Amino acid sequence: MPAVRTQSLDALTQGVLTGEVRSIARAITLVESRDPARLELLERLFPHTGRAFKVGITGAPGAGKSTLTYQLIPRLKARGYRVGVLAVDPTSPFSGGAILGDRIRFDDALEGVYIRSLASRGSIGGLSRGVPPAVRVLEAAGFDLVLIETVGAGQLQVDVRFVADTVVLALVPEAGDIVQAMKAGIIEIADIYVINKADREGATRMRLDLRNALELGGKPKGWNPPITLTEAIHGKGVDELVEFIEEHQQYQQQSGGWQARRLQQLEWELQSLIHDALEQHARATTRQLFSAETLQAVLHGAENPFPTIRAWNLYGSPRETGRT
Amino acid sequence: MPAVRTQSLDALTQGVLTGEVRSIARAITLVESRDPARLELLERLFPHTGRAFKVGITGAPGAGKSTLTYQLIPRLKARGYRVGVLAVDPTSPFSGGAILGDRIRFDDALEGVYIRSLASRGSIGGLSRGVPPAVRVLEAAGFDLVLIETVGAGQLQVDVRFVADTVVLALVPEAGDIVQAMKAGIIEIADIYVINKADREGATRMRLDLRNALELGGKPKGWNPPITLTEAIHGKGVDELVEFIEEHQQYQQQSGGWQARRLQQLEWELQSLIHDALEQHARATTRQLFSAETLQAVLHGAENPFPTIRAWNLYGSPRETGRT
Repeated sequence: MPAVRTQSLDALTQGVLTGEVRSIARAITLVESRDPARLELLERLFPHTGRAFKVGITGAPGAGKSTLTYQLIPRLKARGYRVGVLAVDPTSPFSGGAILGDRIRFDDALEGVYIRSLASRGSIGGLSRGVPPAVRVLEAAGFDLVLIETVGAGQLQVDVRFVADTVVLALVPEAGDIVQAMKAGIIEIADIYVINKADREGATRMRLDLRNALELGGKPKGWNPPITLTEAIHGKGVDELVEFIEEHQQYQQQSGGWQARRLQQLEWELQSLIHDALEQHARATTRQLFSAETLQAVLHGAENPFPTIRAWNLYGSPRETGRT
Repeated sequence: MPAVRTQSLDALTQGVLTGEVRSIARAITLVESRDPARLELLERLFPHTGRAFKVGITGAPGAGKSTLTYQLIPRLKARGYRVGVLAVDPTSPFSGGAILGDRIRFDDALEGVYIRSLASRGSIGGLSRGVPPAVRVLEAAGFDLVLIETVGAGQLQVDVRFVADTVVLALVPEAGDIVQAMKAGIIEIADIYVINKADREGATRMRLDLRNALELGGKPKGWNPPITLTEAIHGKGVDELVEFIEEHQQYQQQSGGWQARRLQQLEWELQSLIHDALEQHARATTRQLFSAETLQAVLHGAENPFPTIRAWNLYGSPRETGRT
């Protein structure tokens, strides 16, 4: 992608700030890219950012994350929020094009809502690094509540806490689902638990099991994560979920937890930007240290690559030379 | 972790080379770590590595990857292979402690088999960077076939091709499973497809659909990935799967595809080592560029962080200073 010129950056910034849909789309594409101009755009948008309330919806595939998101939208709108949706799950219907448009939709539920899917490209812990800058674009465009639907798999789920103020974990009443979530280390990070498809057998039992599992680590000192039952497909229980989401937001603001969390989010965002540049550097360094001929020699056992890497670690790596 | 001294590295190397189980365990723990001594150990083991045949078993949660792996083991042993298993899936029973020991197991099926779970910590594309060095340890210990069971989620599955010579993708006959796999970009990377739980309705139909989906991109020029039906829980179809695995190995050796693939694996392995060092650098750089006070100022909108990152990108990043 060619560098975006200053003039068009001004126009793009203006378009975003006035909430113009095509500008929002272009801006998110730019901040998702590796184009250096993305930093210039973010610099311009920065004064208008940092104010949205970010709600992460995570859970295993099939837990009904998209349906929950879809049901939350009109209810959040009714409470006066301007809602944006970022879907990081590649299997989400929001990403797949079925529901999604890279535009504001005009059906009753989604009118005025900006919905966008983001690639879940490699990153520190799996979650798309495109999320924090895309949130900034939406904030600058006037959206004050961003729903982030994330792919539900192990490490990826854990990272949602670095982008969301409130994490909603969707589970379904299925034998072993709690155990799997515990193993994957996601049980501790949710602020609100949803047992979706609650018409299925075992939902009430699951709530009990989950409560017990959560209390294994002792009674929580501050926020006690609620567990709510929903049948998202029929909208059942979603009003209650909205109340819990707002309660958690208020709790954080009153307790000061908000501040600590936002600081962690900011650090993760900045670290991701640094990491991005270093990732490109990793590729370049590998090619620099190991020519095609050397790689062939290593492959046939004629050359040992580890002394080279050790030497680079000691003398060539930016730990040593990058500090000025 | 304190640096391992040369003397104990010699002993560790010797222990691995003689196939001593506790040494193998210690060595894998070391190469999974960030201890600089891991590179010294890898340097010593290198001459005894590069010879194992690596089979990746991937697929969505619930597809039966662990059961397939468990069923493959005795059959591969019967063909004369010394089998090691690396489980990267945190929800795998091999990882969870149910089946696993960090030791050679002594039941009929698993006797003489080394089974080890690896953390799926953040990496270039998600797959554990611990896999290639752990494979080297197993190779040095005399294992000549390594089964790699990987967490089945989007990006993670795609990376399995960078560590495995043959990728087996396990699917189950469920509506939408093929579409989900296509969306996640994993349908193109498998060498062998398994439709597991083939006693379920729709298995034969799924094979047809999958064949059609695969042929959408035109007839393959070389290897035509077979689609095999299994009921892993009863061992049904697993003999056929073993034959396909060996066929694919032979095909690659004859076609020369083996060479290209191994080169790609090697490049990924070296890049991961470089990347590891740079990741630590990303954290250090972030703290260096943004003090606690600066972060607070950014959080309250009093300071714009993007000029700092832009300046670092231009002048401070290792792209510029790291090249000597």
